[in-house]
Amino acid sequence: MSRVHNFNAGPAALPLPVLERAQREMVEFEGSGMSLLEHSHRGKVYEAVHNQAIALLRELVGIGDEYEILFLQGGASLQFAMLAMNLLHPGKSADYLLTGVWSKKALSEAKLLGKPRVAADTAKDGVYTRVPRQDELSLDPEAAYVHMTTNNTIFGTQWHYDPEVGSVPLLADMSSDFLWKPFDIKRYGMVYAGAQKNIGPSGLAVVVMRKDLIAAGRKDIPVILRYDTHAENQSLYNTPNTFAIYMVRNVLEHVKGMGGLAAVEKTNRAKAKVLYDAIDGDADFWRCPVEKDSRSTMNVVWRLPTEELEERFVKEATKAGFVGLKGHRSAGGIRASIYNAAPEESVAALVEFMAAFRKSC
Amino acid sequence: MSRVHNFNAGPAALPLPVLERAQREMVEFEGSGMSLLEHSHRGKVYEAVHNQAIALLRELVGIGDEYEILFLQGGASLQFAMLAMNLLHPGKSADYLLTGVWSKKALSEAKLLGKPRVAADTAKDGVYTRVPRQDELSLDPEAAYVHMTTNNTIFGTQWHYDPEVGSVPLLADMSSDFLWKPFDIKRYGMVYAGAQKNIGPSGLAVVVMRKDLIAAGRKDIPVILRYDTHAENQSLYNTPNTFAIYMVRNVLEHVKGMGGLAAVEKTNRAKAKVLYDAIDGDADFWRCPVEKDSRSTMNVVWRLPTEELEERFVKEATKAGFVGLKGHRSAGGIRASIYNAAPEESVAALVEFMAAFRKSC
Repeated sequence: MSRVHNFNAGPAALPLPVLERAQREMVEFEGSGMSLLEHSHRGKVYEAVHNQAIALLRELVGIGDEYEILFLQGGASLQFAMLAMNLLHPGKSADYLLTGVWSKKALSEAKLLGKPRVAADTAKDGVYTRVPRQDELSLDPEAAYVHMTTNNTIFGTQWHYDPEVGSVPLLADMSSDFLWKPFDIKRYGMVYAGAQKNIGPSGLAVVVMRKDLIAAGRKDIPVILRYDTHAENQSLYNTPNTFAIYMVRNVLEHVKGMGGLAAVEKTNRAKAKVLYDAIDGDADFWRCPVEKDSRSTMNVVWRLPTEELEERFVKEATKAGFVGLKGHRSAGGIRASIYNAAPEESVAALVEFMAAFRKSC
Repeated sequence: MSRVHNFNAGPAALPLPVLERAQREMVEFEGSGMSLLEHSHRGKVYEAVHNQAIALLRELVGIGDEYEILFLQGGASLQFAMLAMNLLHPGKSADYLLTGVWSKKALSEAKLLGKPRVAADTAKDGVYTRVPRQDELSLDPEAAYVHMTTNNTIFGTQWHYDPEVGSVPLLADMSSDFLWKPFDIKRYGMVYAGAQKNIGPSGLAVVVMRKDLIAAGRKDIPVILRYDTHAENQSLYNTPNTFAIYMVRNVLEHVKGMGGLAAVEKTNRAKAKVLYDAIDGDADFWRCPVEKDSRSTMNVVWRLPTEELEERFVKEATKAGFVGLKGHRSAGGIRASIYNAAPEESVAALVEFMAAFRKSC
């Protein structure tokens, strides 16, 4: 088999050894005479996997007992609604930092449930080329929480600092850059991430949430949508996505084997540098619309002189074995998603292809 | 590898050829140079799988264009809340037919959202040994809907008739007996099922819903929890559980290859008959607490003369390679879940084991 160079924005590339392990273990899991898919979520075999996934995440990030780790279904999109349902008590306000499409979707769900405020918005004519500076945040000290999206897949921007929000809990959608580097969980009341970009397959959201926030959630909402329901049942209130949790466990083991998040960060920064250097190195032809301080290490977006050239680039790249390079339909241009599992070799091959393409023009 | 006899209540046994196919295709999917897990949910490769799953379900059940087929996350438990959020408009009532734990959970969620009524309840001292007869249903012709659970995993009961509910939409949780036989979708406004019993792995709910009911849903609830959101986006509003949908597609293909739902029903009835005959054939020792008309073809529950004997039975069965026979903690006794994918050979082996155990007592 020859692997293509996968730059998909999510679901995205997974580490090859993790896929090979899933293949080996698909029909029979650990000598149990059945697939993991066939194991009860309340049996010892699955339970061990479930608990290992939680323990590994605690270890890799450094998450203390004051936080709960939850494995929920519905992706980040359900979290947009769930966090507001739980934490935006009637009459209360919450602050939203707008940096792109996903943060706006989170805001929209909150509007149906309470009175959220826009505490920052760096859009110009509907386009985001940077995240806000600290001095641009107009925060309400009485807010129930501050919500942010740490990385913006579509516009290719990323926060490179933790905003100061005082004593208000900071909630972060980290779907597209969760575990790209070490981070200080204590700065956040809650972080959450759809698994399908950096840590596993689709169909799972990982939620890390401070226990006092879980406890303070509304009790008059559906039981299945309350965080305390899932916390009290170790994410086994109802049948979880057992396969996705198994895959996350395996990805986390792989990350640990690579040297943990510090090693992951080093590789990710190196990959991003190679690509941005290639773009900046020929600024007459390639153009990254994102301001330097806000450039994403996960989703690198850039333009070519004309849309015709962009179309040709994507077409020829596809033929040459590069997948997923077309920019999001709302942004246009080119996008290379280089999450944790995108190999350095793929980035090197892309840069080489870019140079050859440039010459051919 | 030697396969155990898997009687798990869910997640449950899957057809071996389906697992073997998943194994073959895990690392590279259809010559695409990547795993299905790494494919974009908006790409052509995944899209084909997604649409095949829908088309196969339409074909196998005979579902017309007046129904939408949705693949949602959160399992049946989220549907308990979602259906009430969408269809129980303020001030309206809905009728719930109580036949066990799951129907009660569905009712509990509705209580937080509107004014549901109990239209039938066959419990005696908290235990269910049968489903209600038609003449026991006290239905409200003004109800927003009637909700039922077609099969009750814990108490081992199953509806063997479609209740008459007049012009009120009938909503059925079919999680544990979906596709066990052909059924007339036109009798239902909505049916839904967690995939992890009869049709796939965990982390997916299949929803079949009449389009007029979808359109009549509330618009003032979170977007992600509205059925029309998912219907308008072919279940791709947010990233779905692509692996589970792929597995469901493969299970449905397997079912089609076996001869469709009529063939599945024949096998299921044969398996259930073998097991109930063994129980009834030695009524001094084994005892099925469920009335004959309400006995489940999917979850067969029975008791032994003492709890000590039950414990010994489970222990010795486990040693002999039978998995999942311990009854649910709230019901006690023995339970064998014999969903579509439980092989006839496993049921034959169990009956043989039961006879040997009986002799040893």
